Parts: sequence; structure tokens; C-alpha cells
Amino acid sequence: MADPTKPTRRYDYVTDGTEIYRQSFATIRAESDLARFDDDTATVVVRMIHAAGDTSLAAHVHTHPRLVEAARTALNAGAPIFTDATMIGTGITRARLPQDNEVICTLRDPRTPGLAAAWQTTRSAAAVSLWADRLEGAVVAIGNAPTALFHLLEMMADGGPRPAAIVGVPVGFIGAAESKEALRDNPWDVPWLIVEGRRGGSALAVSALNALARRNELPT
Amino acid sequence: MADPTKPTRRYDYVTDGTEIYRQSFATIRAESDLARFDDDTATVVVRMIHAAGDTSLAAHVHTHPRLVEAARTALNAGAPIFTDATMIGTGITRARLPQDNEVICTLRDPRTPGLAAAWQTTRSAAAVSLWADRLEGAVVAIGNAPTALFHLLEMMADGGPRPAAIVGVPVGFIGAAESKEALRDNPWDVPWLIVEGRRGGSALAVSALNALARRNELPT
Repeated sequence: MADPTKPTRRYDYVTDGTEIYRQSFATIRAESDLARFDDDTATVVVRMIHAAGDTSLAAHVHTHPRLVEAARTALNAGAPIFTDATMIGTGITRARLPQDNEVICTLRDPRTPGLAAAWQTTRSAAAVSLWADRLEGAVVAIGNAPTALFHLLEMMADGGPRPAAIVGVPVGFIGAAESKEALRDNPWDVPWLIVEGRRGGSALAVSALNALARRNELPT
Repeated sequence: MADPTKPTRRYDYVTDGTEIYRQSFATIRAESDLARFDDDTATVVVRMIHAAGDTSLAAHVHTHPRLVEAARTALNAGAPIFTDATMIGTGITRARLPQDNEVICTLRDPRTPGLAAAWQTTRSAAAVSLWADRLEGAVVAIGNAPTALFHLLEMMADGGPRPAAIVGVPVGFIGAAESKEALRDNPWDVPWLIVEGRRGGSALAVSALNALARRNELPT
């Protein structure tokens, strides 16, 4: 292609990435009600608000008291991250991961469609059974399918492996709210983060994971 | 690994993917105010609400009257899709694309960091200049960086190539709202879709593109 050229500047906007982050986080801190979160959890919530572009999200985020500590300890020890959506795998910033942790999504594993058909469930749910061998002590990020989160909880109820921490933010109108309530109420005391209700999604899962992976260089 | 096993069913939830979609779209239709959209545009907005888990989004989506027609015509003719975020490229469902259209993100192009440094702008913005050779008649989906959208508009103002349609849903607190207003007001009549204000993001860009790529098999 031809040498790319810089267009003439015509709009008034900030082009310094560090300054954009600084101003963004300052705005979020000024406008969001973060009082009920401890400092570490608040940095996670700030990142999620940043991803959503919506300070009202703060009221809907809830976390287990040991969520941040449990996730960071696991990631620092090299635990893998399991996700239910390929977009989450793409979005997690590898440079933030403390141990080059593996990010695994089995949605497109060749075994998944057959299991889903045999078990009469969604592919997202069936894919979770393929996590079993390495799930103990791992970090889980579910940002799409309520059925994946229900399936994970059912595996745990059957005596299956226990993750170190679960970011449970599936999105939607059918089952999402209920699946997050079930995670919040999990009787095995596995630390969790949820966005209560219908809201959630890959972008929120990614922002939470990126915040848990490493403290920010910048003040958030 | 050991043969994966189906856990014992312990929660009451829908596991039929088609039924989940059907109930989801029915709920969205029942609870959202879609009266100001034509039928084709409404199916795009329904998909975006589905991705956000939030019917309140409907009030913030605005589109150019020829958006759906322009995007579908371009995609049916094989136009590429340019995005500002790798997550968008991952999320677009290839099976929905009518012509196996190429999905291109130049954020990680080796030339991008050098251009950003030389031009004193963000990598997201600099990456847009690398689209120039194939941008004429393409479909654009910007879901992350306001600077990318401003940069694209500045290229057009300099007489650069004109995309067929622009899904402009960058997210955030610094420049996002302003960049979308600038797109809405573009003087070249390039069709657009925006989420006004701070909200936006990769998931919304993906859901809009997936809806534009193909009409749904299911009633939405």
C-alpha cells in the first residue's frame, strides 16, 4: 500500500493514551459510588465501569470478600484462565498476566458439539466439562452463557474440581440473573464476582480479569 | 483427559439454545421501546440489547436512515469489515457473513506503533490509516477507541476513501460521546449507527455487525 499519511487534525480530542486513561479513571472515581468496596476491589470495579462506559454499573457489582486475593494468588502461581467465550480470550491483555498464564476456551473444541447433542444442553455448557482436568485452582471467567455457569456449579456440586475464583458475568434475559444468584450462593465458599441481573458480557469479564491480573501502573 | 461427564442437573434452566434465543428476543420485544425504528433497524437494535442485557439501550441507539441497506449491500458484495479492536474480529460470526468477507484489524500491525509515535496519537488511531487502500466501500466497526473514530473522520475530511457504512460505538469517558456526535454529523452522508453518550464497546459492535451481516433465522 501507499505510505500511510496522517490526516489533518480537525477535532479537539486527547490523543495521549496515558492521559486518556488518567482522565477516564479520574472521571469514574469522581462520579461513581465505590464506598462499599475495599481499595483492591474498587480498582476492579473502576475497570469494569471503564469498559461499560457507565457509572451505574457500580451498584450491580458484588464480590466475595476474598475475590481479589484469591484470583491474584492463583494467577501469580501460574493458574490457567478458563473462559466460555472466545472474545474473552482475545481481550485479556497477555502482558498483564503475571506468569504468562494460559487462557483456555473449549467452545470450539471438536468434542464440544457432540457432548452438547448427547447431553441435550448448549455447547457453552458442554464445553465446561472439558475444563475438568485443570480446573482445580484455576481462574474462571464466564461472560456469555448462563448455561455455562449453571453447568460449572453442577460439576462442583457433584464433587468436581474447585476453581480458585469465578468471575461470573453472563449476560442476558433467560437465566443470566438466576445463574449469578446461584454463584453468589455457592455453598463451597469459592470466591466470586458477579454483576447482578441481566447485564454482563465479554467486555466486563475481560476488564475484570485484566484488573485482577495485575495492579495498574496508573492510579485508577 | 478422562472422558468428560455430564453433571447431575440441579438447577432449573433452559438448555435448548434455540429456545433461549426465542425467549430472549420475545422478552426484549415485550420490554423495549422500538417504535421509532423501522423493522430492519429494530432487528439490529434487538441484537444489541441482547448483547448488553439492557433494554434501556434502545433509547440511546441512533441510525442513519440508510444504515441497514448500505451495510447489507456492501457485505453482500463482498466488502471487508474493518475494526479497531481484536475482540470485534473474534466476535463476528463468520457463518453469518454472506461472502466470507474479510475481517481486518490493524491494531497489531507492525507499522502501527511507529506511526502512533511519529504522529503523537494512539495506536488505535494510527492503525486506521493502514485501512486506506481498501476502505472505499468497506464496512467499519469501531467499538473501542474514540481516537480511531475521530481519525477516520479526519481521513474522510482530507478527501480519503469513504466506507459504505460505519458502526461507531466507541466507549468511554473521554471523547467517546463527542466522536459519535461527529460521526452522526458527518457531512458526506456516510450511513452510521451510534450509541450516543459514553456507552458502547466491542460486544455492541459485534452484535450490530452480526445483525447487519444476515437476517436472523429466528424471529427477533
